[in-house]
Amino acid sequence: MTTAPTSPPPHAVPAPVAEVDPFHAIAIGRLAYELGAQGRSVIHMEYGQPSTGAPAAAIAKAHAMLDAEPGGYWESTALKARIARHYAERYGQGVDPEQIILTCGASPALVLALSSLFRPGAQVALARPGYVAYRNTLKAMYLEPVEIACGPNARYQLTAAALAALEPAPDGVILASPANPTGTIIEAGELERIARVCRARGIRIVSDEIYHGLTYGPEAHSLLEFDPEAVIVNSFSKYYSMTAWRLGWLLVPPGLVETARARMGNLFLTPPVLAQHAGLVAFDSTEELEGHVRNYAQGRQMLLDALPRLGLDAIAPPDGAFYIWADIGAYTQDSLSFCRQLLLDTGVATAPGIDFDPVEGNHFMRFSFAVSPGEVAEAIERLVPWFAARR
Amino acid sequence: MTTAPTSPPPHAVPAPVAEVDPFHAIAIGRLAYELGAQGRSVIHMEYGQPSTGAPAAAIAKAHAMLDAEPGGYWESTALKARIARHYAERYGQGVDPEQIILTCGASPALVLALSSLFRPGAQVALARPGYVAYRNTLKAMYLEPVEIACGPNARYQLTAAALAALEPAPDGVILASPANPTGTIIEAGELERIARVCRARGIRIVSDEIYHGLTYGPEAHSLLEFDPEAVIVNSFSKYYSMTAWRLGWLLVPPGLVETARARMGNLFLTPPVLAQHAGLVAFDSTEELEGHVRNYAQGRQMLLDALPRLGLDAIAPPDGAFYIWADIGAYTQDSLSFCRQLLLDTGVATAPGIDFDPVEGNHFMRFSFAVSPGEVAEAIERLVPWFAARR
Repeated sequence: MTTAPTSPPPHAVPAPVAEVDPFHAIAIGRLAYELGAQGRSVIHMEYGQPSTGAPAAAIAKAHAMLDAEPGGYWESTALKARIARHYAERYGQGVDPEQIILTCGASPALVLALSSLFRPGAQVALARPGYVAYRNTLKAMYLEPVEIACGPNARYQLTAAALAALEPAPDGVILASPANPTGTIIEAGELERIARVCRARGIRIVSDEIYHGLTYGPEAHSLLEFDPEAVIVNSFSKYYSMTAWRLGWLLVPPGLVETARARMGNLFLTPPVLAQHAGLVAFDSTEELEGHVRNYAQGRQMLLDALPRLGLDAIAPPDGAFYIWADIGAYTQDSLSFCRQLLLDTGVATAPGIDFDPVEGNHFMRFSFAVSPGEVAEAIERLVPWFAARR
Repeated sequence: MTTAPTSPPPHAVPAPVAEVDPFHAIAIGRLAYELGAQGRSVIHMEYGQPSTGAPAAAIAKAHAMLDAEPGGYWESTALKARIARHYAERYGQGVDPEQIILTCGASPALVLALSSLFRPGAQVALARPGYVAYRNTLKAMYLEPVEIACGPNARYQLTAAALAALEPAPDGVILASPANPTGTIIEAGELERIARVCRARGIRIVSDEIYHGLTYGPEAHSLLEFDPEAVIVNSFSKYYSMTAWRLGWLLVPPGLVETARARMGNLFLTPPVLAQHAGLVAFDSTEELEGHVRNYAQGRQMLLDALPRLGLDAIAPPDGAFYIWADIGAYTQDSLSFCRQLLLDTGVATAPGIDFDPVEGNHFMRFSFAVSPGEVAEAIERLVPWFAARR
């Protein structure tokens, strides 16, 4: 290819801002809602959000607070203390409530974490497949994603060996256990080895623990147990079933509190007041929330039992979260078209693998079982003949 | 000063992230709440937040939605359409609802605006004095703030002449009318001249219009009337009296919609669902909201009348917002200590000028009259003798 000599010099216009991909699952979701609005029966397995609402006691608290006070820019001291207590009770780790920064969900918490740790140009490692926003947020912040291909042998997860082998050592790494889109967990011994490698190589750890509480075998461990300098992202959107409320938190080590707080105050201010009141109550709504987990476990088992009938046997072991990541290479090399056609034909909305893995994702799809067991059963009824017709 | 020869080389550790200043008003606010908790009578004139809550109809809607559906990651099509209609009705400008991006308040809307327009290293002009988060957010995003000293002769506002004189031309400018901390408005003719200069010089405009609706003379004009490429920040936190709900919006030109939406989906996801339902209702709660504006107007007039008794005659004309920016050079050259002592002695919390102007701010303070007229009256009773004792 030749360049015409009359082309303007490449720097005559300002450099464009970083290109950031859209979520393809959002396009599927929009189509799903359109079909629903047309009267079609749609089962929403495309998004990672509970179909349940906040715990009843949290909703009651919100009703009470709605009538009690106007609120304002406010950070709940009680909620920060309750979250700190959670780290003591669940993980045996002492945390000062001041280390907790309340945010409008896990997404801004991740932005805050990256902004507090890294300058533009820094390299941050992450697993591929992985949550699409990790890669895109890094790019939008002019950080360099270093994607490490994690195949079925590594349960689609980063390993200490992979991090030890990276040359040069990256400045940071994003870990996710349980992970999106695979649901796989990194077990304690490997987390410890990862923390050791990162400490030795000067790699700062950001650990996304948003799916903690949603596990179907051993519980997930927090990176905090292995690296007191880890920065932890969490949220009320998954286990606590409060997606709509936009409440999450960041846990930072003592030396990073001032840096992170100054960024929070300037870039984001405070999270919604009602959500903070309700979130505090949600922490003690264990019985109701564990009921949701039992439902997910039921839907997960039904899907696992049905997958062979769909001809899908290459799946990631869904230790946690509410996802199944399935290799659909026998059916397609274009996961977006595949998921679109599946939706149009059956009303079952799913997420195309291309969102989570720009290299291999075209022969993967993600099912979310964060719907009721009844909906999972109905989805399976529709999926089986559709897949059978394609074999 | 000499450096010990055994010091490690300066590049042995990663370069630190950008330094971002904390809000000093937050320290005053914390002290104010501590005093309140000790039983002291405190009047909160330090923050820019209404002491009123959301409109009654909006609260009723929130009650209804709390019981109706769980919600999730959701963007209200109806609210985007209503905001688009607002631009037609208030400013006579046609806007496609897709140009509206709903955010968790104006702060992330500003981050989204800057991220969608500029790369690290870009220069962005802004007025000094100005809202502290402009400067700090620019720094946190590795954009270079170009602060333009705006004195009383320019009503503390940017002018077309000042922007025309800047060499080199900056990549962008942040405008605020009415402004924080001064409340001053840029009138239509000057806005038009500013837009013309910016167009000619390739300066992208970000216009913070969060105080629109809160004016005490002529209404504020939107930059959209003068520059269809302007990026507009707004929020439900001020006029709509919904600070606690964390809901704002960004209006971007058609060519920037895709860029901004991809960033929103990755960096922030969606705003709180209840807030979106309530915000839609708030748009038509005009009678109640205009009642708040009448209260602010009353408090503003009481303060204006009282200022000569405090020996404060050098003030910015508070055309809008709910602030008075006063030169306290006759009393102090350390506004933080001054505001702290005022709070300790009288229970009246105010904001030190140093937050808004790192150069001249040590002899300014900001009063917020976003409290009830009764509280303004009580504050004046306490302020008069305290200031008199210092003359």
